[in-house]
Order: sequence, then structure tokens, then C-alpha cells
Amino acid sequence: MPGRLTFWFELASTYSYLSAMRIESMAAERGVEVDWRPFPLGPIFAAQGWTNSPFAIYPAKGVNMWRDMQRLCAARDLPFIDTPEGKTFPQNSIRAMRVAIAALETGKGQAFIRALYTAQFGQGHDIAEPATIAAALGIADLPEDLMQAADDPTYKAALKANSVAAQEAGIYGAPSFTVGSELFWGDDRLEYALDWAVKDGESGLT
Amino acid sequence: MPGRLTFWFELASTYSYLSAMRIESMAAERGVEVDWRPFPLGPIFAAQGWTNSPFAIYPAKGVNMWRDMQRLCAARDLPFIDTPEGKTFPQNSIRAMRVAIAALETGKGQAFIRALYTAQFGQGHDIAEPATIAAALGIADLPEDLMQAADDPTYKAALKANSVAAQEAGIYGAPSFTVGSELFWGDDRLEYALDWAVKDGESGLT
Repeated sequence: MPGRLTFWFELASTYSYLSAMRIESMAAERGVEVDWRPFPLGPIFAAQGWTNSPFAIYPAKGVNMWRDMQRLCAARDLPFIDTPEGKTFPQNSIRAMRVAIAALETGKGQAFIRALYTAQFGQGHDIAEPATIAAALGIADLPEDLMQAADDPTYKAALKANSVAAQEAGIYGAPSFTVGSELFWGDDRLEYALDWAVKDGESGLT
Repeated sequence: MPGRLTFWFELASTYSYLSAMRIESMAAERGVEVDWRPFPLGPIFAAQGWTNSPFAIYPAKGVNMWRDMQRLCAARDLPFIDTPEGKTFPQNSIRAMRVAIAALETGKGQAFIRALYTAQFGQGHDIAEPATIAAALGIADLPEDLMQAADDPTYKAALKANSVAAQEAGIYGAPSFTVGSELFWGDDRLEYALDWAVKDGESGLT
């Protein structure tokens, strides 16, 4: 049986960007099927007593995260611009994530998600802006009326369900990867999690 | 010029254990000189408003850290036992770190530090206990009277100086690695930091 892995990501998360840009090719190399699940970090952080991203709350951690991202993006040949002064971090990603769920149902969601990350972290656009979402739909060759998912009760409920499922899976940050009941946190564990999925598939446990 | 890297570790830190067990061989392969600097995480955490390890404060994060350590230690063939119920985490490492500074001056400090980590995370001993420290000195072929450093004002001051230097370097967790002004956080960045040190040495900037 092929390995299966669930990719939990938040569209406003810098390290989720790193994983989103490489997970598809890495999974294909290993024959692993990936289930993409966007989820909002806000409720997860709130459950830990944080009212904002830990990168915003803890300055030393935040400073080093941006430098770390600069170095990693340079090494991986990914576009990256620092969040300029006066711009928001983390951005409000809720409406974009509802559209992402709808886009994933079409089979072109991965391209849409990569386009949104590139717009946000590679070009400095705000994914809370409808124009940014619309442009990403265009890049992914998806119809602009998919935008309606942003206010559709079905997709509101689907995103909330992902949030509940993430908390039930013990998730406390993004990106995270699950293989059955095994949880892996962070882009640094992507390769490890994929290899785990391969072994898990071979053992027929999934 | 050879690359140079400073290895900032806390003796009570699980992920510092991972780095301590492999940094010497990895640095030797690359011709990088490593300066080992123990430092207490307590003041660093206090500066972020935490009165304990984040792994103790945030349950979901703590649960996954222990599972992550199990998996990584199994993959790296390192001994690891979970912290049993009723045992302390994090342990009080202050006296052991003062002795570590004294041990590093003899050239046998690395072996002493590895012995302490193995006792703590591989065998479940408490490094706050003088017997654990004494046994590690024996394994490293160091004299038992080095124990006196635990209460020596010189080594108390040296550990405090490391704490201040760590905060000045922007350090917010352990292990950390610095190459000049570049800061890398976490065992996951060890290879990357060593490669950076090699490039830095070749460019003659250090």
C-alpha cells in the first residue's frame, strides 16, 4: 500500500511556506499520497494562552525566525522578502484558507496554495486582500468565482472542522505532519515524516 | 583559516543532548573548531515570561517533544528513556554546568558532558546529584576534586557570564550555534551551522 501523510498548514505561517513549496515533489519521489489540510493557528495559539504568533510575542525568537527564513530560502532558491515595517505579521489568512479548501476539491489547490505563499512571502502581498486571492486563482488556472468560498457556510464549517481535528491530533504549530497517530512538527521533520509514511504503508498499517 | 563555531548548550536540555553526542565528529569532518559554552536556560526563559521550560508549560508541545526524542534517538542509536512520572524535568543543571566549564579547561570536558547527558537521558539519573556528576568525571578520566567547581565563585561567575553572553547573542533556546554574528537555533540546524562556519573560515571573516 502507498504511504499516506496529512500535511497540516496555515497560510500565514512562514515555515508552512517552506514545506508547501517542496512537499509535492518529495512525496512523489517516495510514492506517498498527501492530504493537504489548511487550519487556523489562532485557536491553537489561544489554547496555549497566546493572543498572537509566538514570533510576534517573543522578540528574540521572531528576529531569528526571519533570519532563518532568509538563509533557508536563499539555500532553496525560493523568493523571500522580509516583512517590511508597517506590514502585518501574521496576516489574516482565514478567508484565503476557506478558498484553499474549495480549490483543493478541484485538484488544482496545491498550485493555488503555492501561488498564495509566493505572493505573501516572496512578493510582500497581503493574502487578506481579495485581489491577492483572485490573482492566485488565476495563476492556478481556477475560476475567479471560487472566491465565494470565502463567505460560504460550507467552507467556514470545513475550516473550523480542520481546526478541531488539528487540536485533537495534538497539533500545536505549523506545519505539522501526521501519519496515523504519529505527529511530526516543523518543516525540519518533513523528510522524516515522509519516510515514516513509506514504512507505514509497507507495513499495511494505514 | 579553519571555521569556528560556538556551541551553546544547556545540560538539562533534551535537544542539546542530541547535538552534544554528534557535534565533535561532524565538526572534525569539516575541520571546524568548536567552542563549547554551557549556559543556563532559566534566565533566558524568564526574560520571555516563562517560569519553566516551554515543554512543561505547553502540554501538547511537551508530549510531542518526548515522542520526537524517542524517534530521533532510535534513528541515531542513542540511549533514551522517557522521563518517568515523578521525576523532574527539567533537572537542576546549574552545579553540573559549573563543573563542565572547569572540565572543558582540561581538554576532557566534552567526554564529561556526553557522560552527563547519557546518565540523564539514557539512564534516568539526576544530574543535580553529586554522585551523578562524580560518576561522569570518572568516565571522562577526570579527578573527582573537579567537583569543587560547583561551589567555586570563579565558575559561578563564568556560568553567569555565559548566560549574559547568550542573551546578548540573541539566544532564546538550546542548543544554539553562533558563527560570528549568525545565530542558528536547534539541533536541526547543526549541519547547516557547521557548513556556514566552513564558508566563513574560507572567506577569512572570523
